[in-house]
Amino acid sequence: MKICVLPGDGIGVEIIAEAVRVLDVLNSDGLKMELEYAELGGCAVDSTGSPYPEATQKLARAADAVLLGAVGGPKWDVLPRPQRPERGLLGIRKDLNLFANLRPAVLYPELANASSLKPEVVSGLDILIVRELTGDIYFGEPRGISVEDGKRVGRNTMIYNEDEIRRIGHVAFKSAQKRNKKLCSVDKMNVLETTQLWRDVMIEISSEYPDVALSHMLVDNAAMQLVRAPKQFDVMVTGNIFGDILSDEASMLTGSIGMLPSASLDENNKGMYEPCHGSAPDIAGKGVANPLATILSAAMMLRYSFANEAAATRIEAAVKKVLAAGLRTGDIWEEGTKRVGTREMGDAVIAAL
Amino acid sequence: MKICVLPGDGIGVEIIAEAVRVLDVLNSDGLKMELEYAELGGCAVDSTGSPYPEATQKLARAADAVLLGAVGGPKWDVLPRPQRPERGLLGIRKDLNLFANLRPAVLYPELANASSLKPEVVSGLDILIVRELTGDIYFGEPRGISVEDGKRVGRNTMIYNEDEIRRIGHVAFKSAQKRNKKLCSVDKMNVLETTQLWRDVMIEISSEYPDVALSHMLVDNAAMQLVRAPKQFDVMVTGNIFGDILSDEASMLTGSIGMLPSASLDENNKGMYEPCHGSAPDIAGKGVANPLATILSAAMMLRYSFANEAAATRIEAAVKKVLAAGLRTGDIWEEGTKRVGTREMGDAVIAAL
Ligand SMILES: CC(C)[C@H](C(=O)O)[C@@H](O)C(=O)O
Ligand SMILES: CC(C)[C@H](C(=O)O)[C@@H](O)C(=O)O
Repeated sequence: MKICVLPGDGIGVEIIAEAVRVLDVLNSDGLKMELEYAELGGCAVDSTGSPYPEATQKLARAADAVLLGAVGGPKWDVLPRPQRPERGLLGIRKDLNLFANLRPAVLYPELANASSLKPEVVSGLDILIVRELTGDIYFGEPRGISVEDGKRVGRNTMIYNEDEIRRIGHVAFKSAQKRNKKLCSVDKMNVLETTQLWRDVMIEISSEYPDVALSHMLVDNAAMQLVRAPKQFDVMVTGNIFGDILSDEASMLTGSIGMLPSASLDENNKGMYEPCHGSAPDIAGKGVANPLATILSAAMMLRYSFANEAAATRIEAAVKKVLAAGLRTGDIWEEGTKRVGTREMGDAVIAAL
Repeated sequence: MKICVLPGDGIGVEIIAEAVRVLDVLNSDGLKMELEYAELGGCAVDSTGSPYPEATQKLARAADAVLLGAVGGPKWDVLPRPQRPERGLLGIRKDLNLFANLRPAVLYPELANASSLKPEVVSGLDILIVRELTGDIYFGEPRGISVEDGKRVGRNTMIYNEDEIRRIGHVAFKSAQKRNKKLCSVDKMNVLETTQLWRDVMIEISSEYPDVALSHMLVDNAAMQLVRAPKQFDVMVTGNIFGDILSDEASMLTGSIGMLPSASLDENNKGMYEPCHGSAPDIAGKGVANPLATILSAAMMLRYSFANEAAATRIEAAVKKVLAAGLRTGDIWEEGTKRVGTREMGDAVIAAL
């Protein structure tokens, strides 16, 4: 099992270090994971001029899974578009064909207070958002800024073909089968033909999953319902841009985005795993970042790419134990709990393993 | 002052009736508003085959303002696209050039409990969302579903030229000047060139408003920040599709979408005024719908299209009085308040005028 490790920028380096220490423990207990490091994002721009350099491409393509910290920072925001760190992220997603982005929004009972929502609205929250990740307006052509009749015009193209919709649909239905068997597909079919096709295809494939209850919701209503009554959802599936917005909204419902992992999979369960949060340049290098989302991303890697449910559960149980013991990094700290740094949190998870 | 009144579908008829009674009181006190009725949406499809028929176009174009109830219902969702009620809504927006959609999200202190967010997170909430309404992916060409290489492909076009961005920008900056002088422009400039142009133009015109603090936020982050700490915002400005999603999310933060009005303006302050909520077919005809958002929309009409601040404030004060007196329709009712129907609520507002 070859893992390509990409610490990235900002707090990425610190949080990846803790996840790697967790994997090392599993290795010393008999797993055979080989870790190789490469650069993605701003650090890669600095050393090679490209946010997704060839050496990284080679390693990432050859690996069975990729573990990513986070990319980006104000330092690189002034560069021309092709050299911005997020281009590296979009580049590796497309290059490895990671079309299925799984983003759980789970509320840990110990962290219920962190939510800005009333406890009764979010207690027990457990949503899985399945976001299409390699199509839509993110990659559609034509695109760009041009001058027409003396005016600047900006243009992007939302585009999906039925195959792209079908394959993410299957991932979503299968995910729902393993959970509470409810799938809500989100679109804007009353305005956008692209999403009318999305809805049509979801309905077509639903006959293959008679045990899953499929519903449909318009994206504006979905943004409201996530605030009003998020527990009505089990699995949600949507396109790249709506998924970008809704999955961030959903993760913030928990109040602890520093806890949430994500997986981006191709058709053969090769995947890239990363925390939902960003590179947090403001706290980078201070040893205070929360490594748990990255550690939980490593657990997702074991589950999805290496089909090792036991190891995944072992990590997740260790994280729960540490939370139950009252250890908290700054982002999730509250009165009555013990504030720890990145390294201490990693130590605690390892001890709990 | 000519007003084109469009009751529309569902509860539209009942709630418009109460707003009209309020306007009648102002008329009997000396205002000179002429009301003429026309059909929009499903009712128009039923009687003419078109959701925005010619007779309505004529009246709406000739009027100084349009007061709309709500359109749509499951009955018409099975019709071909051009005959769906929302096509009437999109049609009248485009026809009258109503490019500036103003959607306040205000929490009434009396209704603080209705929010799903913690009281300290939303108390005193007062956001204005300025949404561009006649451009973007809503109207961009090419669009549609076609078959290419034997596969169905759905396609829509996000497009803005600098003039379209500039004019909504000016509306937003001017709105901010009348409020707390903070404007947050929302885009997805790290992925979409269209919204890079959006950001560029916002920065360009900001020099004309040195008293307004302009900030920028990515749409995914904005969806999070609205949940995490909505009171950080004063005025937000964004494009049509992001505005559709974020304004609905923002209005749901108040928990009482039945209270929120909206205005859609052209370049000369001619406008269409309507509640933020929909046609609620499930409770239509029962006399239980909340007419306050429509009554408050009439107040916005007096303020924006007729420059009659006194009359607008008079209506708004009457609504506050009725809330303070404990009267509530079903959607905002809670223990200890008095449940009233649509007509009774209208009576109470009129008595309070
Ligand atoms: C950094 C950005 C390009 C990216 C996206 O929009 O997909 C991020 O917001 C995410 O959700 O992973
Ligand atoms: C009904 C629909 C076409 C409309 C829109 O998307 O603009 C509605 O959601 C709104 O926000 O007014």
